[in-house]
Amino acid sequence: MEESRQQSEKRNAPIGVFDSGVGGLTVVREIMRQIPEEPIVYFGDTARVPYGSKSRATIIRYSEQIIRFLKTQQVKAIVIACNTASAYALDEVRRQLDIPIIGVVRPGAKVAAQVTKNGRIGVIGTEGTIHSQLYTKVIREEKPEYQVIGKACPLFVPLVEEQWLKDQVTEEVARRYLKELQDSGIDTLILGCTHYPLLRSTVGKVMGENVTLVNPAYETALELKALLKKENLSFAGEEPEEKYRFFVSDDPTKFQEFADRILPCQVRQTKQIRIDEY
Amino acid sequence: MEESRQQSEKRNAPIGVFDSGVGGLTVVREIMRQIPEEPIVYFGDTARVPYGSKSRATIIRYSEQIIRFLKTQQVKAIVIACNTASAYALDEVRRQLDIPIIGVVRPGAKVAAQVTKNGRIGVIGTEGTIHSQLYTKVIREEKPEYQVIGKACPLFVPLVEEQWLKDQVTEEVARRYLKELQDSGIDTLILGCTHYPLLRSTVGKVMGENVTLVNPAYETALELKALLKKENLSFAGEEPEEKYRFFVSDDPTKFQEFADRILPCQVRQTKQIRIDEY
Repeated sequence: MEESRQQSEKRNAPIGVFDSGVGGLTVVREIMRQIPEEPIVYFGDTARVPYGSKSRATIIRYSEQIIRFLKTQQVKAIVIACNTASAYALDEVRRQLDIPIIGVVRPGAKVAAQVTKNGRIGVIGTEGTIHSQLYTKVIREEKPEYQVIGKACPLFVPLVEEQWLKDQVTEEVARRYLKELQDSGIDTLILGCTHYPLLRSTVGKVMGENVTLVNPAYETALELKALLKKENLSFAGEEPEEKYRFFVSDDPTKFQEFADRILPCQVRQTKQIRIDEY
Repeated sequence: MEESRQQSEKRNAPIGVFDSGVGGLTVVREIMRQIPEEPIVYFGDTARVPYGSKSRATIIRYSEQIIRFLKTQQVKAIVIACNTASAYALDEVRRQLDIPIIGVVRPGAKVAAQVTKNGRIGVIGTEGTIHSQLYTKVIREEKPEYQVIGKACPLFVPLVEEQWLKDQVTEEVARRYLKELQDSGIDTLILGCTHYPLLRSTVGKVMGENVTLVNPAYETALELKALLKKENLSFAGEEPEEKYRFFVSDDPTKFQEFADRILPCQVRQTKQIRIDEY
């Protein structure tokens, strides 16, 4: 009887999701669509954003601090909703954890390997994500004969943050970044950074309709759903009063504006915490 | 006698210079040119870069940590070689300090007020620098009738970091950002971010030869020189073995490459420290 109350408390605990800033909200959006009953605690590291150009050791240290914070929120599972942190830190932090944790890279890589017809897959992302070559490794584990071509696109995140989404400048930048991927004849392109789904139409226009764009956020939400089910952790309670809670490391104002644009629900309150004290 | 040895130790101590990352090296370059005998300790906050889009409170906290670190290096004076940190944190940290400290905003603002003929001055910088309106305040203190028009240019820093310095995309971005400054008839434009001097030729091309570009780095080095003289702190010893020392908060590799491109001397060694422990 006691056992079962404990299990139900665990089931009904929130999922922890974190990212370097606002980009991970595109993953939260997919989770909200796929498993709308699940409570979520989100952390965006807005005081130290971006992660994409920083070193592996620093990203691991930041991820460890964030996970210590999320544990204080009694999360039942963690999603690293940032490609760079998934690429650099997931294997490292998983070893130290007693709850399930997933990143966005593996789900995205797996579906790309299923979708491609010619075995040539492109990946675009931050310097860190491309440098880690994790997408390549995961795809090659399943299909050693596949070709994976990575390309870092450092200007895409600032262009999204400037909101130049369908813009002549952004299109010209995309043409330049994507040229070598076009020339290499890929038929599948992974949007390997959580900001990039917001550039989907520009990237799609440049790559043409014969290239399938893969958004790992969608696949990650599906994998999370399956994982919770498998681990007997799917939510089964009554809707909690504060279903979604948001935390950031810098002033919440800008974050909240962005969140209200991206998410299907209104963000009621975002709290600021000092993440370097965790 | 004892007094005089203490004074000479103080004189021959290094100058502390800090920035959010590599941009402040353009200020270091000017200091090396103007007062080549002075030893320098530089800190670049590469693990938390950029500062331009973060809040005032966060920038003050980061600046305080960095100043605590620089004090452990026995610096005799500090230069905030970052416009955003100068704009947000200088007045705040000066109160807590027993050594002289200067920023880059006041020297840049003062010379712009001298240079303009029509009393219309433009300022370009990060969101934080423009939002603080410090350039406007300093210019208006001297010349209340002057018009100061600020414009944030968030894409300029990533474009410099991508090294698209003389580039069609960069020129198009500059045309868009600078349009309202052109329309307002300014004759003087302050390059209010330490990365922007690297875009001088593109900005100059867009603005035309009738607009004078002001680089606060140069003026800051001159003000530092005058300050050291006035405070009896000019270096008067023998050239120390390690004249220039560089510290960063993230992996030093990329920093060192950038430094070697910008500085007139080779950077022998850059050390990584954990700035959030100060």
